[in-house]
Amino acid sequence: MTIDEIFCCYIKNMPFKFEITHRSSESNARLGKIDTPHGRIETPAFIPVGTQATVKSLTPEELCGLGVQIILGNTYHLYLRPGHDVIGKLGGLHRFMHWDRPILTDSGGYQVFSLARLRKISDEGVTFQSHLDGSSHLLTPEKTIEIQEALGSDIMMCLDECTPYPATRAESRSSLELSIDWARRCKESRSAEGSALFGIVQGSMFEDLRARGVEALTNIGFDGYALGGLSVGAPKELMLSLAAFTLPLLPDSLPKYVMGVGYPEDLVELVSLGADMFDCVIPTRNARNGQLFVRTGTLNICNARYQDDNAPVEEGCPCYTCRHYSRAYLRHLFMAKELLACRLNTIHNVHYFMALMSNMREAVRLGRFELFKKEFYSQRAC
Amino acid sequence: MTIDEIFCCYIKNMPFKFEITHRSSESNARLGKIDTPHGRIETPAFIPVGTQATVKSLTPEELCGLGVQIILGNTYHLYLRPGHDVIGKLGGLHRFMHWDRPILTDSGGYQVFSLARLRKISDEGVTFQSHLDGSSHLLTPEKTIEIQEALGSDIMMCLDECTPYPATRAESRSSLELSIDWARRCKESRSAEGSALFGIVQGSMFEDLRARGVEALTNIGFDGYALGGLSVGAPKELMLSLAAFTLPLLPDSLPKYVMGVGYPEDLVELVSLGADMFDCVIPTRNARNGQLFVRTGTLNICNARYQDDNAPVEEGCPCYTCRHYSRAYLRHLFMAKELLACRLNTIHNVHYFMALMSNMREAVRLGRFELFKKEFYSQRAC
Repeated sequence: MTIDEIFCCYIKNMPFKFEITHRSSESNARLGKIDTPHGRIETPAFIPVGTQATVKSLTPEELCGLGVQIILGNTYHLYLRPGHDVIGKLGGLHRFMHWDRPILTDSGGYQVFSLARLRKISDEGVTFQSHLDGSSHLLTPEKTIEIQEALGSDIMMCLDECTPYPATRAESRSSLELSIDWARRCKESRSAEGSALFGIVQGSMFEDLRARGVEALTNIGFDGYALGGLSVGAPKELMLSLAAFTLPLLPDSLPKYVMGVGYPEDLVELVSLGADMFDCVIPTRNARNGQLFVRTGTLNICNARYQDDNAPVEEGCPCYTCRHYSRAYLRHLFMAKELLACRLNTIHNVHYFMALMSNMREAVRLGRFELFKKEFYSQRAC
Repeated sequence: MTIDEIFCCYIKNMPFKFEITHRSSESNARLGKIDTPHGRIETPAFIPVGTQATVKSLTPEELCGLGVQIILGNTYHLYLRPGHDVIGKLGGLHRFMHWDRPILTDSGGYQVFSLARLRKISDEGVTFQSHLDGSSHLLTPEKTIEIQEALGSDIMMCLDECTPYPATRAESRSSLELSIDWARRCKESRSAEGSALFGIVQGSMFEDLRARGVEALTNIGFDGYALGGLSVGAPKELMLSLAAFTLPLLPDSLPKYVMGVGYPEDLVELVSLGADMFDCVIPTRNARNGQLFVRTGTLNICNARYQDDNAPVEEGCPCYTCRHYSRAYLRHLFMAKELLACRLNTIHNVHYFMALMSNMREAVRLGRFELFKKEFYSQRAC
C-alpha cells in the first residue's frame, strides 16, 4: 500500500463521495477516491467477496495487511443465515465480522436466480425457496433495501433481474424494464443517510437496451452505476465490447462498477475502458481449488511437478505465502486437504489481485498506463 | 508468555538437556526446562499435534503467539505423504513447514495400529497397507529412526506396539517384550547428534508389567521416558492410578511424558503426579467440532442459545478470538461450515491449553500448586 492508501483507512464517517484525481491520456482509465462511512477507497478497486460474513479462511487483519480496501457481503446468504435481523441486533455486519473498512452488499438477486429453487418472478418481486432448508421467501426491492440497511452496508445495490445469457431481445427488454422499475422502488424505499445506492444496468448483449438502461437509471439518479449480466457466460470479446459501449454512457463523475468480473486480463481491459470497481470470487475460489495467479498466468499447485519444488509460488513475490513456503509444501497441504492450504493459497491470490490494482493505479497516476498494459501482456506465457 | 518463556525461544542449537528448577512441596509436580537443538521448552508442557506438517488451520506465527513451545509431527503420515525423503531433501520438517521451534515426532506405530490396514506384526517390525492408497510398507525400529532423523526431529520416539485395551496379561506381557526389543533396536540404530530419543513404557493395565517395562527401558537408557497406552480406552480412574504407580518409577532426572492425554482435568492430575509432557489432539480436533474450552468446562458453539449471543466465548479471555468475535459470529461461521470457524475455534482452544499449562508452571514456581488445583476445580460447573 502507498502512504495515501494507508491514510485512506483513517478517513471515517464521511458521507459517500467520489472524486477523480487523475486521468490516463492514453485510455479511459481514471484514478479516483470514494469516501464512505467506513473510510476511503482508492479506485480502480477490486472487491474480494465475503459471502457469509467472512472472506473464506482469512481474518480481517490479514485482509488489511493485503491491502484490501473494501469487501462484498452477499445479502441473499446473510438474510437466510444468520439473518439480517440477528446481524442488525448485534450492531451490523461490520461489527459482527470485525471488519471496519467499507462493505458493499449486493441485492441478493443474483443468488436468488443462481442458487435458490422454485423461483417465481412477478412485478412485486421474486418468490424463492431457500437452498438451505426449502423455506419460502419473497424478495422485493423494498425488502433488499431493508436487509442491506440492517446490515449497515456502505454501498447498497438495487434489486435487478440478472438476465440469463443468451436471451432474446424481447426477453432482455422486458427483463430490463422490470429491473428499472425495481431500481426506482429501491431508491424510493431507502432511508439510510451516508451510505450509497448504486443502480445496475442490464440489457443483455443488446447495445440499444444497455443505452436504454443507462438513460432510465440516470433519470432516477443513483450514487454510482454498475454493469450487470457481464459475467453470466457471454464470450469475453462480447463482454468487453459491451462494456466498451456502455461505460462511456455512464455519468463520468460517478463510480462505474463492473459486477462479477474477473480474471486479471479482464481487469486490465476494463480499467482501460474506464471502470472503477470490480468484484469477483476468482482469487479466493480458485485459491481453494489450487489455482494460483502469477505474472505469467496461473499455476495449479496440485501438479506433480511441484512435489519437491523448493521455490516459492512466485519468485520475488512479497506475500506471506511466498516469503515462507515452497511450492512443495503448498502442494503437500493441498493434496492432504489441509485447511492451511486454502489460507496460504488465498493469501497469495488476494495479494496478486491487490498488487495488480495498486500497480494499475500507480500507472494511471504516473501517466504510463499503456506501458503498464504492454508489460503486463509481455509477461504472460500464452 | 513470561519473559523466561520468550527468552527460551532464542536458545538454539543446544544439545538435549533436562533440568528441574522447582518442585512442588505439596505434590509430585515439578517445573523444568528442556533444551533441544531448536530451543528451550518449559515444562510441564503441552504439545499440540501437527499431524501432516501443520497444526490444522494455524500458521507457525499464530502458534508462537499462542505460546506454543513444541509441536508433534506424525511419522506415519509424513512417511506416506509427502515422504520423509522429500522433506529431508527440502531441508527437514522445520524448514518445510516454517516452524523453527522444537518438534517431537512419534514413531508411527500408533497410527499403523489405528489407521493402516492389514497389519502383520513380526519380531522384525510391522507390515501394513497405507490408508491412502493401499500400498504395502514395513515399519521397523530401524526404519522409524531413519524417518525421524530425515525429518530432523528434536525428540524422537521409539517404535512400540500400543497394546489395545482391554488385553489379557499374556497378551500384554508379550506385547511389552516386543516393545522393549524394538526400543533396544531403535537406540542401536540412531545416529543423529543433539536430538533425543525417548523410550515408551507399555504394559497395559498391569502394574508389574509397567514396572518391568520401566526396568528394561532404563537399563537400555534413553533421554526421556513416555507412558504409552494410557489413552486407548481404559476408564479415567484406572489410567490415573496406573500413571500414579508408574511415574515415580521413572528416573527423576529425566522428562516424563504421558502420550495422547488429554482433557484439562487429566493434565492437572498428571502434572500433580509428576508428568512433564503431554500431547493430544483434543484442543485442535474438538475446536473443529465446535467444542470450546472455558473455565467452567466446555461449550458447544453450535447450540442455538448462542445465535444472538454478543458475548465472547469466555469473558476476559485475552485470545484473539475472544477479543474480537461474539459467540453469535462463531456459531454462524460454524453452522455455515466456514473455514474461519476452525481457525478461530482452534485459536481459542490452543490458548486455553497453553494458559492452563502456563498457570500450572507458575503455581509450581510459586509453591502454590494445591491452591491452583483447588481453584481450578472450584470453577468447574459439574
